[in-house]
Amino acid sequence: MTKKKRIVIIGGSAAGPKAAAKARRMDNDADIIILQKDADLSMASCGYPYYVGGYFDDRNMLLSTPTGVTRDPQFYLNAKAIEARTNTEVTAIDAVNHTLTYKDLLKDLGGTLEYDKLIIATGATPRMPPIPGTDLKGITTLQSMKDADFLRRVRDEKVIKKAVVIGGGLIGIETCEALQLAGIEITVIELLPQLLMFLDWELAKLVENHVRSKSANVITGNGIAEFLGENGKLTGVKLANGTELPCELAVVAIGVIPNVRLAREAGITIGQTGGIEVNEYMQTSNPDIYAVGDCVETVNRITGRKVLAPYGDLANLQGRVAGENAATLNSVTFPGTIQTGICKVFDFAAGATGLSESTARRLGYEDITTVINASPDKPGFMDGLLLVTKLVAETKTGKILGAQCVGPGNVSKQIAQWAMAIQGGLTVEDLVNADLPYAPPFSLAIDHFIATAHIMQNKMKCRFKGISSMEVQEKVKNNGKPFILDVRGPDEYEEMRLGIGERLIPLGALRKRLNELPEDKDHEIICYCKISLRGYEASIVLEGNGWKNVKVMEGGIMAWPYAREK
Amino acid sequence: MTKKKRIVIIGGSAAGPKAAAKARRMDNDADIIILQKDADLSMASCGYPYYVGGYFDDRNMLLSTPTGVTRDPQFYLNAKAIEARTNTEVTAIDAVNHTLTYKDLLKDLGGTLEYDKLIIATGATPRMPPIPGTDLKGITTLQSMKDADFLRRVRDEKVIKKAVVIGGGLIGIETCEALQLAGIEITVIELLPQLLMFLDWELAKLVENHVRSKSANVITGNGIAEFLGENGKLTGVKLANGTELPCELAVVAIGVIPNVRLAREAGITIGQTGGIEVNEYMQTSNPDIYAVGDCVETVNRITGRKVLAPYGDLANLQGRVAGENAATLNSVTFPGTIQTGICKVFDFAAGATGLSESTARRLGYEDITTVINASPDKPGFMDGLLLVTKLVAETKTGKILGAQCVGPGNVSKQIAQWAMAIQGGLTVEDLVNADLPYAPPFSLAIDHFIATAHIMQNKMKCRFKGISSMEVQEKVKNNGKPFILDVRGPDEYEEMRLGIGERLIPLGALRKRLNELPEDKDHEIICYCKISLRGYEASIVLEGNGWKNVKVMEGGIMAWPYAREK
Repeated sequence: MTKKKRIVIIGGSAAGPKAAAKARRMDNDADIIILQKDADLSMASCGYPYYVGGYFDDRNMLLSTPTGVTRDPQFYLNAKAIEARTNTEVTAIDAVNHTLTYKDLLKDLGGTLEYDKLIIATGATPRMPPIPGTDLKGITTLQSMKDADFLRRVRDEKVIKKAVVIGGGLIGIETCEALQLAGIEITVIELLPQLLMFLDWELAKLVENHVRSKSANVITGNGIAEFLGENGKLTGVKLANGTELPCELAVVAIGVIPNVRLAREAGITIGQTGGIEVNEYMQTSNPDIYAVGDCVETVNRITGRKVLAPYGDLANLQGRVAGENAATLNSVTFPGTIQTGICKVFDFAAGATGLSESTARRLGYEDITTVINASPDKPGFMDGLLLVTKLVAETKTGKILGAQCVGPGNVSKQIAQWAMAIQGGLTVEDLVNADLPYAPPFSLAIDHFIATAHIMQNKMKCRFKGISSMEVQEKVKNNGKPFILDVRGPDEYEEMRLGIGERLIPLGALRKRLNELPEDKDHEIICYCKISLRGYEASIVLEGNGWKNVKVMEGGIMAWPYAREK
Repeated sequence: MTKKKRIVIIGGSAAGPKAAAKARRMDNDADIIILQKDADLSMASCGYPYYVGGYFDDRNMLLSTPTGVTRDPQFYLNAKAIEARTNTEVTAIDAVNHTLTYKDLLKDLGGTLEYDKLIIATGATPRMPPIPGTDLKGITTLQSMKDADFLRRVRDEKVIKKAVVIGGGLIGIETCEALQLAGIEITVIELLPQLLMFLDWELAKLVENHVRSKSANVITGNGIAEFLGENGKLTGVKLANGTELPCELAVVAIGVIPNVRLAREAGITIGQTGGIEVNEYMQTSNPDIYAVGDCVETVNRITGRKVLAPYGDLANLQGRVAGENAATLNSVTFPGTIQTGICKVFDFAAGATGLSESTARRLGYEDITTVINASPDKPGFMDGLLLVTKLVAETKTGKILGAQCVGPGNVSKQIAQWAMAIQGGLTVEDLVNADLPYAPPFSLAIDHFIATAHIMQNKMKCRFKGISSMEVQEKVKNNGKPFILDVRGPDEYEEMRLGIGERLIPLGALRKRLNELPEDKDHEIICYCKISLRGYEASIVLEGNGWKNVKVMEGGIMAWPYAREK
């Protein structure tokens, strides 16, 4: 009898169990062992904020199959013939001898284990700011089941009144919402000038405005200098600018660091990003060792660069690839990421795929065109909700480089569409006539996605000159004296307006009231409406009548990120 | 001064006004005239069923811009400098002399009009069955504002108790829902063996089951033979099989016929489908005449064949292309359709894009593989809802040919993803590692879309042998004696089960209870679970233990279209 192949997986959260299950499906005979440091297995960690926020009360839902069976060692053994050892920490990998040493944390006993193929899925550790006071009681992250349990108790006990969230990324925002729903006065503190760095500033600002509208406070461009405490308990935080904020709870969400110690000590190559380097087979520099999930770096499919992309969906997909390759002979590949992400923000969602403008420019992309489109996801009579999209495309080829979308509308569908368009290498010209599912309960006759492509096409064909809200604001602040033209109706103007010195001339009256425009045909005129479709039409009317310096403020009032007069 | 170019558009519903508006944006100086037979302009006709069903009460929402301005002639004149003449029927086109004759229906006056470019957007007329009684009062369609007004009055007056809908297509189903919501006892009558012909039978059956669960009756495979009446009023319908159904209202929704009389009489080529033939510029056989919307045929981008695709979204996109080309020199093209469509069915949606299996086979595609996947759109703890998807791919290349999806989950997003995948020419291998927006409020870590691609990949790699519910039902009916194995848990079995002679052995117990399986290793075994992931795993266990004829029933119990024991 030949010796059974043994596949050992270090880590039992997301990528590890997926790799194990796939390996089992590929090889019914192999010995498959998961070693997991934590007490739990296969936790739905992306669900923690929703458990804390009270979207559901049954903690076991985070740990069980859709039919309610807990994914514990017994489940893995019975359903998948996989041996899962929890509370078992791997302490070293001996790559030369194909063994690893581990410690049973409950029994405090060590042991060694041989492997034929090893899959490292050690995840990542939350970063902590290097400042005084991090050992105070009341400071936590939201990365483990234990963290989730702690914060859920905070919710249920209703003792804590004030909290801060350090970091305005995905998890920071999700935690902010969860704690706000728990009735806690909350402040998000972000060192960088904006929330959600996967968005460009103007869209991030719309998210920030929405967070504020929920009575959550937001501080950007200001880091935390010190945790303050009394008797070992957190009493507040001190910011870099000296401000002190009293609070009894601080949740730190400033990103994660890949757990690569075991790999590094085993002589495996670590990439420049700090994640374990893997090839397209998810194989490390040691051919018998694979690595998957938050501990690896992966390739950005657009830029070709290595990036860290600690997302649950990628972890699962990588696990599937590594599981198959460990069980067979490197038969499948993982193509990398386009860094698609999404985040619920109270009644908004904020998502992105591909490159933002700021990322693209930082990476040296110069030949890019961007547009902003604001329009509802469905007709008004079906209670359509606003979407604001920023699209980034390569000017020469029209290829879509990235899209971001925020708002109360169906952001997730929009981002999914853009993600598929990017993966298909599609161009603006391909998308202007996209054939998408249309019926009034689901979209506009010309879906927001297609309308965004239309605006991009018009801009690329120089049919209008766009101007961003930031540029307009800058001009107004610097007394640039552009003629600012709001072409909405009087009722709309009464209800909501910018108050930046604009003149109201409704589009329907514009052709008769051209005498109210600047006599100088070279005077800069900036048109806008609610979402800037009428603004676009107004610009055409003005250009058709001889004005030469007409611009359209993209996204109109709905994408204006600053305070309005009303 | 040169004479202004005159662009005339016949038809003012969807494609016509879009073409006019685009032409205006391309040419600020042209004379642009819309001639519209109806009293209304630019009606949101896809919204009629929702007005009838009471989703909203303000009729004007169907006729106005998002900011509430009615799209009447005054609006077109002021906002777009377009002359729109309503109640004006074009009676003939003189293509040689570039003129047309029209009749003002209110004043009963005729006239002629010259054009440089003409755009025909005459739409389509509802088909009526060629049977006795069609002139009875109480028989209507739902294609015009007048129809919508009539049916809305039916809703508001609450006099009519029983109605039938003739035709189980998109509009038939939407009308069925609208009338059911109006408190009317409703029966849908479809001549063909299933509802919604864009779906394959087994998915259409799931829709039918859902319609029935809403107390609406469905009759398939039975046409209508006669409308019955008394004193000129409808009292019932008689079916082909002799059945008589009493009813006071009948809504006919058996499709539409392109309105091509004007075009044909002007010598313009009509295609074999019955629609006006156009090239990629939306130009008819007469280079100065374009045609758009429900009156034209368009090319199916997958098959290359001409088809009729009377959808509102395509009408708008075609209008945009023709408007630009009429104003310029054929600068843009319309690539055709992949026949993406979606329909709300009470709490379900049903959508499709590309080819169904039955369409593909009818067109001679032989090298295809299909799979069915049933799984939730989101995690259980975020109240995920079921989606059932059938995917059709080319076996040799893995290219996606079509996808259909039904269920209470986010069908629209799934279909949009598939539509983009098809438009990008993507293959199953491209999609198994798609990077889509994941967070628990929006999707599973492995989205239903990606999971569907996984199952297709596994099937194409012969990792399991799928069997459809129809084949299983057939085998059971014919005493085929397969060993049918339900691998769910005992609680699930108590709650819901097929009752087709299956044996329950939970997956977790299977490896220990192999002795309960047929001794004959060639005996046909059919595994399934709720959605068939566990069914798939069970099939691997059995094959790993020597059974050679193991199949997985695709989609599991959730995609079972027949009656269940419980």
